[in-house]
Amino acid sequence: MTNILYSLNSLDKILKKVKPSKICVVTSEKLAKRLNWAIKEIGPKSHIILLPDGEEAKEWKELEKLLKKFSNMNLDRSSLVVALGGGTIGDITGFAASIYLRGINYIQIPTTLLAQVDSAHGGKTGINFLGYKNQIGGFQLPIAIIVDSRFIKSLSNEQIIDGLGEIIKAGFIKDPSILSLLRKHTLVSLVASPDLPKMIRKSIAVKNHFTKRDLRDHKSRQILNVGHTIGHAIELKYKISHGKAVIIGMLQELKFAESLGLTRPTVRKNLENLLERLGIILDNDMRADWKMIVHDKKVSGKTIDFPIIKTEGKARLIKLDLKLLKGFKVK
Amino acid sequence: MTNILYSLNSLDKILKKVKPSKICVVTSEKLAKRLNWAIKEIGPKSHIILLPDGEEAKEWKELEKLLKKFSNMNLDRSSLVVALGGGTIGDITGFAASIYLRGINYIQIPTTLLAQVDSAHGGKTGINFLGYKNQIGGFQLPIAIIVDSRFIKSLSNEQIIDGLGEIIKAGFIKDPSILSLLRKHTLVSLVASPDLPKMIRKSIAVKNHFTKRDLRDHKSRQILNVGHTIGHAIELKYKISHGKAVIIGMLQELKFAESLGLTRPTVRKNLENLLERLGIILDNDMRADWKMIVHDKKVSGKTIDFPIIKTEGKARLIKLDLKLLKGFKVK
Repeated sequence: MTNILYSLNSLDKILKKVKPSKICVVTSEKLAKRLNWAIKEIGPKSHIILLPDGEEAKEWKELEKLLKKFSNMNLDRSSLVVALGGGTIGDITGFAASIYLRGINYIQIPTTLLAQVDSAHGGKTGINFLGYKNQIGGFQLPIAIIVDSRFIKSLSNEQIIDGLGEIIKAGFIKDPSILSLLRKHTLVSLVASPDLPKMIRKSIAVKNHFTKRDLRDHKSRQILNVGHTIGHAIELKYKISHGKAVIIGMLQELKFAESLGLTRPTVRKNLENLLERLGIILDNDMRADWKMIVHDKKVSGKTIDFPIIKTEGKARLIKLDLKLLKGFKVK
Repeated sequence: MTNILYSLNSLDKILKKVKPSKICVVTSEKLAKRLNWAIKEIGPKSHIILLPDGEEAKEWKELEKLLKKFSNMNLDRSSLVVALGGGTIGDITGFAASIYLRGINYIQIPTTLLAQVDSAHGGKTGINFLGYKNQIGGFQLPIAIIVDSRFIKSLSNEQIIDGLGEIIKAGFIKDPSILSLLRKHTLVSLVASPDLPKMIRKSIAVKNHFTKRDLRDHKSRQILNVGHTIGHAIELKYKISHGKAVIIGMLQELKFAESLGLTRPTVRKNLENLLERLGIILDNDMRADWKMIVHDKKVSGKTIDFPIIKTEGKARLIKLDLKLLKGFKVK
């Protein structure tokens, strides 16, 4: 089982239990400077590997380099790899650790809000390949995930919104108490409030609820794709942040569900009000390309498993005739 | 759960259940010619990918090429990969299938005796890296393993002995009825006898007994390493077949266990008599290098988990002080 810990200080507890022969911290050049305090706390004797910043770290060539470094450092079966960074660092590092010597222990220390509430959890790892996202990868849970709120303090508003997309989603698909907390805040008041760590914990619980029962993403885990069917296609087309794309996706998918009579318009109105109160402004003109949705979701038949929000805190997976989705135009 | 089927004809049953969007058969150039009948039976509409013959197929570059071919063939989440060949083909193909799109279904069709009784089972997949064997890989079970005795008919004596090493080991560590069957035969009479398919099934059952309880090789699965601690180091040093190396390893490890008073000399005598009856002649002068054993087993502490045969059909894992093994000289 994966341990979820809420302070970097707790790492000691794990190290005492696991007794790794070596510790190797994987991070990026920029992060190594900015998060020097964290690297020091992890341990002065750790080996450090620096990946390129951004999505280019998730390439086949970088995976080969990373594995070579593991081997040259003589990491063995009882060594420990620590991924310190956002989703990109976590994805490639987790994957490399899971195939080196057929899998050695690794820990996720997510440093962005998005990684803290979403990508560090659930064991999905991987890299991009031939221009396609996450084409190569696996499902391998880390032995621990350390979610320290100190990392959040230095994030920009854009990076906060990037994580809020998944937090809002968690509220709508499973836990409405997240939405009640959110409604008390503007973006500025939220970052300084103890409500943010509360929401982070609640969002992680929602993610784990769906991944525990279906690690390999065959069925119920797909509920987590709310906002992503349309949102991910918009993210790829307009190169906007994941969080904004998921929110836009949720709004448009709600309109679609309304058009089928599956959801009442009040749900979407509530979401719109929440966004207004938080001060999150979105581009309403973005539209997903139909072909991109089909390719992104790797649909092969005539139907698609489509998760929709029913009411606040409740979502459902429906088998949708692709024609209906193709014919839908956002107004 | 992995289905084990004993005829290529049974493939139809699986295809009807799984309904793959595409089938891709991975084999080698030599095998594609020799086993054309099998490729035809798998299905005329299958895509074929040819890997280099021999161990050079298990390289990082070949893995990249194989994954590119999967992608260019548009294999999707409901496609099926079929590994047709010996351990090398099975290892790299299983690994590629297990990381492509975070894992798609694959089937092992082992065509050597060694792969039929050993390497195709238990889910270990992988490639060599920087000159080290199986440095990169995973544990991913195929949906089915098809063990067809027609493949055995065309094997050379050396290839039969290569598989017999693991069959004899299975007899000594768990199922003595395998040894009773073996004692009825010479190498020549064995290949034509219905006893060989019987032994194959029994050996597979032994392997599954140990891998089921411990897929990731943390503890009880290591019983399967009988003969391998010394044998694998000899295999690497003298470039002899895996089967012969395992038999030599078993003999020398038995001598070692005798020297510690853990096994009685009659066990080894029985093994020597069996080898004589079968007509398997071995080089008695081969010696493992101490350093190679330590590196091969990736030992980091002062002890090694060492599996020893106690009596026919019974083996045990002991924590061995490395000094004892280092000090042991085979006479």
